[in-house]
Parts: sequence; structure tokens; C-alpha cells
Amino acid sequence: MRVESVDPYYLAMPEITDVGDGSQDMLLVRVQVGGAVGWGECEASPLTSLAAMVTPPSHSACRPVLEAVLGEQLDSPTDIARIARRVTERCFDLLQADHAWSGIEIALWDALGKALDKPVRALMGMGASQGAWTPYASVLFGEDAAETRQKAERIAAAGFSAAKFGWARFGSGSPDQDREQIRAARLGLGHRATLMVDAGTVFGEDVGAAAARLPALEESQVTWLEEPFSAGALDCYAQLSRLGRSVAIAGGEGSHNATQAINLMTHGRVTYIQVDTGRIGGIGPARVVALKARSLGREYVNHTFTSHLALASSLHPFADWPEGGMAEYPLELSLLARNLVPRPIELCQDGLIRLPDGPGLGIRLDIDAVRPFLREVTITVGEDPVYSTPPLLP
Amino acid sequence: MRVESVDPYYLAMPEITDVGDGSQDMLLVRVQVGGAVGWGECEASPLTSLAAMVTPPSHSACRPVLEAVLGEQLDSPTDIARIARRVTERCFDLLQADHAWSGIEIALWDALGKALDKPVRALMGMGASQGAWTPYASVLFGEDAAETRQKAERIAAAGFSAAKFGWARFGSGSPDQDREQIRAARLGLGHRATLMVDAGTVFGEDVGAAAARLPALEESQVTWLEEPFSAGALDCYAQLSRLGRSVAIAGGEGSHNATQAINLMTHGRVTYIQVDTGRIGGIGPARVVALKARSLGREYVNHTFTSHLALASSLHPFADWPEGGMAEYPLELSLLARNLVPRPIELCQDGLIRLPDGPGLGIRLDIDAVRPFLREVTITVGEDPVYSTPPLLP
Repeated sequence: MRVESVDPYYLAMPEITDVGDGSQDMLLVRVQVGGAVGWGECEASPLTSLAAMVTPPSHSACRPVLEAVLGEQLDSPTDIARIARRVTERCFDLLQADHAWSGIEIALWDALGKALDKPVRALMGMGASQGAWTPYASVLFGEDAAETRQKAERIAAAGFSAAKFGWARFGSGSPDQDREQIRAARLGLGHRATLMVDAGTVFGEDVGAAAARLPALEESQVTWLEEPFSAGALDCYAQLSRLGRSVAIAGGEGSHNATQAINLMTHGRVTYIQVDTGRIGGIGPARVVALKARSLGREYVNHTFTSHLALASSLHPFADWPEGGMAEYPLELSLLARNLVPRPIELCQDGLIRLPDGPGLGIRLDIDAVRPFLREVTITVGEDPVYSTPPLLP
Repeated sequence: MRVESVDPYYLAMPEITDVGDGSQDMLLVRVQVGGAVGWGECEASPLTSLAAMVTPPSHSACRPVLEAVLGEQLDSPTDIARIARRVTERCFDLLQADHAWSGIEIALWDALGKALDKPVRALMGMGASQGAWTPYASVLFGEDAAETRQKAERIAAAGFSAAKFGWARFGSGSPDQDREQIRAARLGLGHRATLMVDAGTVFGEDVGAAAARLPALEESQVTWLEEPFSAGALDCYAQLSRLGRSVAIAGGEGSHNATQAINLMTHGRVTYIQVDTGRIGGIGPARVVALKARSLGREYVNHTFTSHLALASSLHPFADWPEGGMAEYPLELSLLARNLVPRPIELCQDGLIRLPDGPGLGIRLDIDAVRPFLREVTITVGEDPVYSTPPLLP
């Protein structure tokens, strides 16, 4: 079979608000392989990733991502890995290429599975065993402690045994203000729930500022502090990991290739490595990170910030962990993200989540339901129409 | 003063060939500050960086680069650093932002210098002392050893005492084929010249394949092997550095922030750290890397692959080294890059290069001479014209 087509679509809510909600837009990728249609989602900046796919070339190592993919042979996962190497070789001076390729890679897995009538898990050699994860509700802190507590109470009432609060003003005020927010989250969740905090890189490379929050985190039995620093600040991560005592350090969502995530474990000493398949180059490199985490005795966790298509793809790299694990479960999705997947991955009666059955990623999309969110894009360079949104077909 | 305007222009040769020549296109950035006009150049993929500048926002940490810059106060270098932090905070999920911001940052330095009638060196607190560098001619290997030798002879005849050969098929054939090419370069240059080899990441993460080239490199007294591995492969760099004996390891052009370059020195143990101001976020973060290199006893070297506007900006971070140093000097520039700078940085009679005098970066551009290379770009999203190439004013 060949990769017959790769079509990116920019979808977005009518209004994008200035909060840390990644589900407000998406670059949805549709590929066609041997007559089967597969879907993937790129995380972050749809227009920029679209440009990376279709841009005219600059030189031999800065070429459009689609050029390396279209028409390629695709009969097995080995071909996906081979195409990934082509993208790396031809696009290594094109920074955004990793983000753009990620959604394509996921769509290729989905299409290959559908063409061969097999779940992606089977293509990955995982056998029939079903992974099950403890989902943690992933939400933003409230505007104040009272709102955070209400959010936490709602999460507990919805059956979640774990939750992560993040962003908003965490880390940018005083440690005491943060303490109040963390306490509110703990009070709302109850003392038996697992609580995590996400700093969203707010401390930059300031280890002291991050360390000043450790007592409040310990006091509320927070399991991990996530992404305190910029993605590549390995020494800061390592220093805070040494200081953390009962609070583990987590990070990795900023990794745009497997090596960066592995560096964060080996040189940055994080306990929890969090990978977004929509950024790191797709399911293949995420699987490499998951296996490396296992061999190092660290915990692999998905990063998911958008739709349940992204959630499904981000669960695959560790879908054969016999003991399951923690899984990020975005709870405040936009209407766009909710419309896309009419049958989302929901909590089972035992409070765990599982991947759906079925060929490919096992996720059915409702394309008609997101059609109103399509943003028609045209890009022309000189006389050449470089991109014009194609019809959005199911 | 305020940042009054930021205008990116996509310029390119009529035909882009599939070789490792980065001067075939450019994203030129014009800024206006207090009535003064400054220019900068972004390295790599003009259309993608342009999209990163103007894209609609995705969420609070994935916003268009220009939004963080336009209208900002700019009276001193402190303001440039402050705007850089704004870009980092608002764009950290937009991967291409670092490349896009780089050209803007350089243009801001140039404009600020012109507005204050001072050289950028003076703004950087460097005083009146003039740096001087030993330029190495930076060229691609020939198609075969005979062509490489001819190139090397021409370089020696032009007065260069140092040269770097790279890319083409180096590393993708056998070690013996590479040996032949390296020998030809050495023979053509003569035994007293300084010779370097650039592998252009060809070995990926394969330390054995890179190590297999060390004997041939040692035999021809090659000073450094450049970029054997992918940018973030810290452990591979460290392993090869231990094996290198007389051959030093160099790298860093893939760094898109200061921390990554510093990691390559501390964790990757490279001896020569090579930074492109057009990728790493401009002159400010490059200066941070240069000072860190000095404190670690490593050698800072500019990476320059494009025009002499890029060369001037890339020399600034180490323009006050009393002993000078090595400087990459691209020798096979496209007509576009040559036309842009009518008075390039040329070899002085002593065989060294120096920065020109004058306010800002000291480089005068001939905008009329590159007008024929302008690629008119239009980007529309829905009803909104997101970008349309503005008039190219001097």
C-alpha cells in the first residue's frame, strides 16, 4: 500500500480565550492508505504546523514534511518508522516539523490498522491484553481557592480518585497564595485522593522559586509537581528532584523527540515522564520513551490536553503495562473536542479507563459535528497556491 | 520608544536546489523603533516562521510571536531581554517561535543601535575594542575527491588559513570513501591550514558509525568533527568526545535556546559550541552561551549558513574576545545573499575578519538589489487576512 493522501484541517472554537486550555483548536490530519482512512491530531499551533507540512523547501535539510510522506510504501509499522527517519533527515532544520509530523504519524497508525483490520495495539505487538489506567482529572486552578475547592468537589463526585490542578496564577504570586490553592484542592478532593500540581513552566530556570513551593506541596500530600521549569532545563529538574522528598518531579510534555524525553529522565532525574504523542513525533517515539522509562524504573504518563482522539493515541505507548498506571484525562474540553468524538473514553464502573476495541485507534469521529469549526485556510507563495483547505470528508 | 512595526519578508532564489546551502532563501525582518529601521534574518523555513509570527492564538501559551513584540517599550537592551521573556512565556507551546523570534531580536538590536546612534557592541557594553577572527571558509564537499581538492586549492589561494568541508555524501558511504574526501581537502589546503569536517547530523545517534571516521580525521589532522549527531543526543556527543583524542567534537547549531547549547557543553562535553543567532533566539541568548563557554574553558564559534547580515549578528556574541577565535565564513553564498549586503565582511590583509563600524549591526542592506527575490505571500484564515506581504521598503 501507499500513502495516497495527507490532508490537514484547521479547526477552532469561534473565540480563543487566553487561558491554558489546549482543546480550543486542533490540526486534524486525515490520511488515506490502501483505501482506508486514518485520523491523527497535532498538538499546538495549527497554522504553523500546516505551514511546516506544505512550505516550499529551503535546502536539503529543510523541506516540507508532506514531501517525505506522500506516496511512501506503507505495509507495516516498520514503514512508519522508516518514514519517520525520512522526515528527520529532510526536515531537521525545520523546527516545527516534529509537531507537524506527530499528527501524521498517528493518522498513519490508524489508517494502517483499519486497512489491515487490526487494532493499533496488535500492530505494536501488544497481544490481546487490555491496559487499564487510573485517570486523573486534569483541570485548571480556579480563580480563587473557593472556586478550586468547588472544582475538586465536583471531580470527586464524578468518581475520580485522582486529579491534577494547574496553571492559572500558580507560581506567579506568593508561596502562601499557592498554599491556599493547593489546600483547597486537597480539601475538595478528600484526603484519600491522589493530587498533583502542574506549574506550566512558570519558574523558568529558577530552582529557588520552585523549591519555595515544596513545603505546601508536601503538606497537602501532592504526588508530583509537574513541569516546574522550561522543557530543556535538565539541571534545574535534577536539582529540584533531589530536594523534593515526598514530592516527585514530573515533566516531558515539551519534548519534541524521544531523545529529549530520555535526557529529562537520565540527566533531569524526573520520576514521571509525560509525553504527548501529538508533539513528540507520534506513537513510535513515545513507545521508545515508555520502554526506556520502564527500564529506568520511572513512571510513564501520557500528556493529553485536547480531544479523545489525542487521548487514545497518547495511551497506546503504554497500553500493555500489566499494572496500568496513571493517565491524564482532560476534563474541561471545548465543544469542538467533545463534538469530534461522540463516544469518548469514559470511566468504567471500577473507576478506570480502557482503550476502545476496534481496528486502528478504535476511535470513531463525527466529522459532521465539527464541520462548523473548520477554518478555511489559503496560503499562496508567489503565483503558487501552496495550501487551500480541501473538502472535509469523513 | 516603542516597537512600531515588525514586517517579515520571504525572499528566495528562483530555484531551490536539494543541497545543503542555507543561503537559498531567507526570512528578512524589518522593524521600526523610534523612527529607526533595523534588520534581522531568521534562519530556516521562512514560510513556517512567518506563520509562527502571525498565527491566530491557540491558548495562553501558544500565541503569535508578533503579539508579544508589537507596541512594546524599547529604550535599552534590558527591554530586548524583557520582550524575549514575553515571547517565551506566551509562545512556549509554539515550537517554531524560537526560530521566528530570532530574526526579530536581531532586528531590534540593529534598530535600537541606529535609534541611539551606537554600535550594537557598545549597547552590549563591549567598549571600543574591536574583535578579529580567523575565518574558516565553509563549503560543501565536492562530488568526488578531485572536486574537493580543487575547492580546497581555491580556498587556500583566496588567502584562507582554515576551511570546513561538510555534508554532501559524508558519512553515508564507507569510512574509506570519507577518508578519500578528507585527504583531498587536506592536500588541497596544504599541511599548515586548519581543517574541519561537518557531518550534518548524518550519524543520528550511532556512535559507532561516527567513531569509525575518527582514524581518517586524525590522520589528516582535522581540528574538529562537527555535528555528528542529532542536536539533543547529549550522551552520543559525550561518548564521542571521550573517544576523539586529537579530534575535538563540535556542535550546537540545532540549539533553539541557550539552555540547549549549555547542555551540549556540560552534558554533551563538546569542545566547540556553535551557535546560530538566527535560531537560538538572537544575540542575547547567544551571548549567554558565549560567556558560559568561556567560563567552562570551551570555544565559542558562530554558526553561519546564510548572508553577511546573519554573519554580523552571529559574530556579536563574542566580539570582545581579546584573542579573537575561529569564525565560520560562508563562501558559497547565493546571489540573493550576496545582493543583500553590497559591502560584505571581507578578509583583511592580515587574513582576519572584523565587524564593520557604524550604528546598529554596521551592515548596510541593498533592498533594491533583492527586490526581485521577494516572494509575495498571502495567508488567510476564514475571512481574516492573516498576512499579506507588505511593501518592501528600505
